[in-house]
Amino acid sequence: MIVIKDIQEMQQWSTARKKEGKTIGFVPTMGYLHSGHLSLVKAARSKSDVSVVSSFVNPTQFAPNEDYDRYPRDFDRDKNLLETLGNDVLFFPDRNAMYPLDYETFVVTEKMATLWEGKTRPTHFRGVCTVVTKLMMIVQPDKMHMGQKDIQQCAILRRMIIDLNIPVELVIEPIIREIDGLAMSSRNVYLNPEERKAALVLSHSIFLAEQLIQQGEKDAQVIIAKMKSLIESEPLARLDYIALMNMDNLEPVSVIKSPLAIALAVYIGIIRLIDNVIIR
Amino acid sequence: MIVIKDIQEMQQWSTARKKEGKTIGFVPTMGYLHSGHLSLVKAARSKSDVSVVSSFVNPTQFAPNEDYDRYPRDFDRDKNLLETLGNDVLFFPDRNAMYPLDYETFVVTEKMATLWEGKTRPTHFRGVCTVVTKLMMIVQPDKMHMGQKDIQQCAILRRMIIDLNIPVELVIEPIIREIDGLAMSSRNVYLNPEERKAALVLSHSIFLAEQLIQQGEKDAQVIIAKMKSLIESEPLARLDYIALMNMDNLEPVSVIKSPLAIALAVYIGIIRLIDNVIIR
Repeated sequence: MIVIKDIQEMQQWSTARKKEGKTIGFVPTMGYLHSGHLSLVKAARSKSDVSVVSSFVNPTQFAPNEDYDRYPRDFDRDKNLLETLGNDVLFFPDRNAMYPLDYETFVVTEKMATLWEGKTRPTHFRGVCTVVTKLMMIVQPDKMHMGQKDIQQCAILRRMIIDLNIPVELVIEPIIREIDGLAMSSRNVYLNPEERKAALVLSHSIFLAEQLIQQGEKDAQVIIAKMKSLIESEPLARLDYIALMNMDNLEPVSVIKSPLAIALAVYIGIIRLIDNVIIR
Repeated sequence: MIVIKDIQEMQQWSTARKKEGKTIGFVPTMGYLHSGHLSLVKAARSKSDVSVVSSFVNPTQFAPNEDYDRYPRDFDRDKNLLETLGNDVLFFPDRNAMYPLDYETFVVTEKMATLWEGKTRPTHFRGVCTVVTKLMMIVQPDKMHMGQKDIQQCAILRRMIIDLNIPVELVIEPIIREIDGLAMSSRNVYLNPEERKAALVLSHSIFLAEQLIQQGEKDAQVIIAKMKSLIESEPLARLDYIALMNMDNLEPVSVIKSPLAIALAVYIGIIRLIDNVIIR
């Protein structure tokens, strides 16, 4: 595996592969890789000729009060994991090269970025759209692989790629869960043992909603109310939002009709976690 | 020459040329071509293997009070002109294909878009950056050719291309002028004979400023004052702004030091015209 830090060098590597007629699979990450990331890398390797993983904790998607500085980082561990999987390139750019002092340009989605996660994190998706556009321009992939865990991010980036006519196929891979159901997240490392247990309230709420729909429940408000009371039964949990939403435009739905997504964000202590399921 | 209306077809044409190892030169236009545009097409043809010209009056760069509806259009004339030059593809997309009803995504530059032209036209550069990003993603050129006439546009797009790491080289071509000095513009067609004569006050001011600098004048305020009084001497003219600015960040300069740009916008009757010169 090659480690590339320089932006131009990464661009040249990709251009050279494309000239050879090779397809490029790309997995953008913020590092501190878990099994969810690794499943994306495996997908990239199996669906394209060569694979590139980027590791960049993107400052523009964190608000000043968020965890940019303490976001977990472990470059050597990530590098070893990716080497074991046979990944071709680890792209590890410098913050100042990605955002020089005179940086000016942002990619924004208007309405979709203001809903759900956007209410708590108003500048988050602007940062995500900007860095993912930059990374796509640098890596020039044929396919980009992302996890369904960040479902609003997936929907917004899909819209952005369509809107800007970016010639990249976005491939969404399923959520990878711990054996007890907790969705994998780099932020799970923040949880103490008691919080780790309480965090199961997220997946349990998601599974409850799925079950209610399977049993024929059609009223979104009924499902939300039952999820809410499950979350309220956990003393360490504080609900941020529950979304039953249209997958294309993220608008809330009132009557259950597939396809739709059920997503939620819950604080466990001070740690904010998310989870979701798509009902097809 | 092929005329392509469909976005996917354009993308496929470009991908096929790139697979053949051909370089693509691109000229984005809003149609109603004049000699300025044609000089860009000639540059594209001489510097790349194949050339693509887009013709699209971009609604997102016009404010509601501006001239989107009455902007001059003449597809057949443009097509004939481009055929004569041996241009390879004329890309002529549909407004609804470029901006479907659920369109969400915009590319913005923060500070540079608020200066000079941005004061009079606050949403203009957002529309320009967005459509040019889209066109670059569709046409996938190696080089994009633009005229120095829209100097702030050139500076902002150069910044955007660097910031977003877009693998396209922006090539700025000189202003083409009528025999009496008026900078070529599709909007010149709006001028009646009297206004056409009055419009010379733009190029005359620019030439005056150049002359003053050649004579050793170092004080930006002195140059601005002399340009201003020349413009005020023309009854049909109303000054919008005079900018003596740094070419990289568009900030005003107070002491003349090359490289810098001198730009101005003047209303002739209700028609707003621009002109500029770069002092190297």
